[in-house]
Amino acid sequence: MRFISETTSDGVREQLFILDGLPGVLWTPDGAAGARSLILMGHGGGRHKKDADVVTRARRFVTECGFAVVAVDVPGHGDRPIDDELDRIATENQARVAAGAELAPLIAGFQALVARRTVPEWQGVLDAVQRLDHVGARPVGYWGVSLGCGLGVPFVAAEPRVRAAVLGLGGASASAEVAARITVPVEFLLQWDDERVPREQGLALFDALASTEKTLHANPGGHGELPAFEVDSTVRFFARHLS
Amino acid sequence: MRFISETTSDGVREQLFILDGLPGVLWTPDGAAGARSLILMGHGGGRHKKDADVVTRARRFVTECGFAVVAVDVPGHGDRPIDDELDRIATENQARVAAGAELAPLIAGFQALVARRTVPEWQGVLDAVQRLDHVGARPVGYWGVSLGCGLGVPFVAAEPRVRAAVLGLGGASASAEVAARITVPVEFLLQWDDERVPREQGLALFDALASTEKTLHANPGGHGELPAFEVDSTVRFFARHLS
Repeated sequence: MRFISETTSDGVREQLFILDGLPGVLWTPDGAAGARSLILMGHGGGRHKKDADVVTRARRFVTECGFAVVAVDVPGHGDRPIDDELDRIATENQARVAAGAELAPLIAGFQALVARRTVPEWQGVLDAVQRLDHVGARPVGYWGVSLGCGLGVPFVAAEPRVRAAVLGLGGASASAEVAARITVPVEFLLQWDDERVPREQGLALFDALASTEKTLHANPGGHGELPAFEVDSTVRFFARHLS
Repeated sequence: MRFISETTSDGVREQLFILDGLPGVLWTPDGAAGARSLILMGHGGGRHKKDADVVTRARRFVTECGFAVVAVDVPGHGDRPIDDELDRIATENQARVAAGAELAPLIAGFQALVARRTVPEWQGVLDAVQRLDHVGARPVGYWGVSLGCGLGVPFVAAEPRVRAAVLGLGGASASAEVAARITVPVEFLLQWDDERVPREQGLALFDALASTEKTLHANPGGHGELPAFEVDSTVRFFARHLS
């Protein structure tokens, strides 16, 4: 793990790093020493590790909860090289949708393919980050919606260090069976008028989670219109389960 | 409006009253003077104005938000006389359910009948309580689940003083058309395994609300198993919309 830059602003220390070729960013409280809970955040499709939605939430987890937060670029995104295989599949999918194919199963299939890489990558990120003195080995949370949900479901199901997860804007097409292996508390965000994820698919994914504590938060609006007050709720959810 | 008793404990003043024969209770901060937001709470079926679920929430709205809270007994409940007509219909409904009839439409029909009385009664309660110096005419919130939702939907739809409502544990059988006249922010509580309200009926009632800001909170468990953390969320919801 090689740190390549470091900045601090408004109480948050931001460290960019490369881990086995994987570009990532770690946020911690300025001056933090000792172990603390850690949240791994998965970004959305076409976005990257420092997407505004990720940064906004990461800074709040750090300043309001004292947590560490880490995010890395998904294959083919951000500072990672173009991935020919994923690019080819994405292009084929676009052509299929243009020809009238249903979008949701194509998205689900694509995300399942990407998850085969991101699950071990993210597990390696936890290994490396938790060895740092100012992070340490405390409980881990996961946050990810849309692509971050498609990749997050298999990650949370596979990784026992994750004790609580915020997921959402995703459907059950490909991940219901995997979701049935998740037992940690989940806050699940669903947009009632999501143009990318059919409502019944989102409800079915929430239904499939085996967690005894899981809460669906559904709000009106499209895929990209999560209301700001849900960020407050997310902060409280992680504070409750990881503090 | 005649006050018949007054007690104070842990910072909350509780005044029992009779208004045109209607028994009620008003909670305000101890020593409160001047206008403040008011929450009217509707109790559940077979319960009463001082049901534990009502009192727990009322005390928190008073102590954490500084609001006034009022609750009255629904016809045939609490300190009100037995209502022969409602009693007869309830008995008939029990017989129908025993004979295999579907429960939800019977509940909905019964609640619509009761609401014809409670809507004007509750409007009269607002009139009277808002004339008190320590309550005054600030924005009003409504809280009610189960029977309190069945009666709350027509009340919130009819009463422009209500600016925010927590509803839930109710279905669309009889109230979807009325719900479509509600435009204020709503937090809607749904129990995913509700044995009294079919899931699709609860989702349909949430869907029918015309509010641009509405949030569905769905949790696992039966009709009577709302999780405690939803009380925290309710307090924040009212604080956000009525403060």
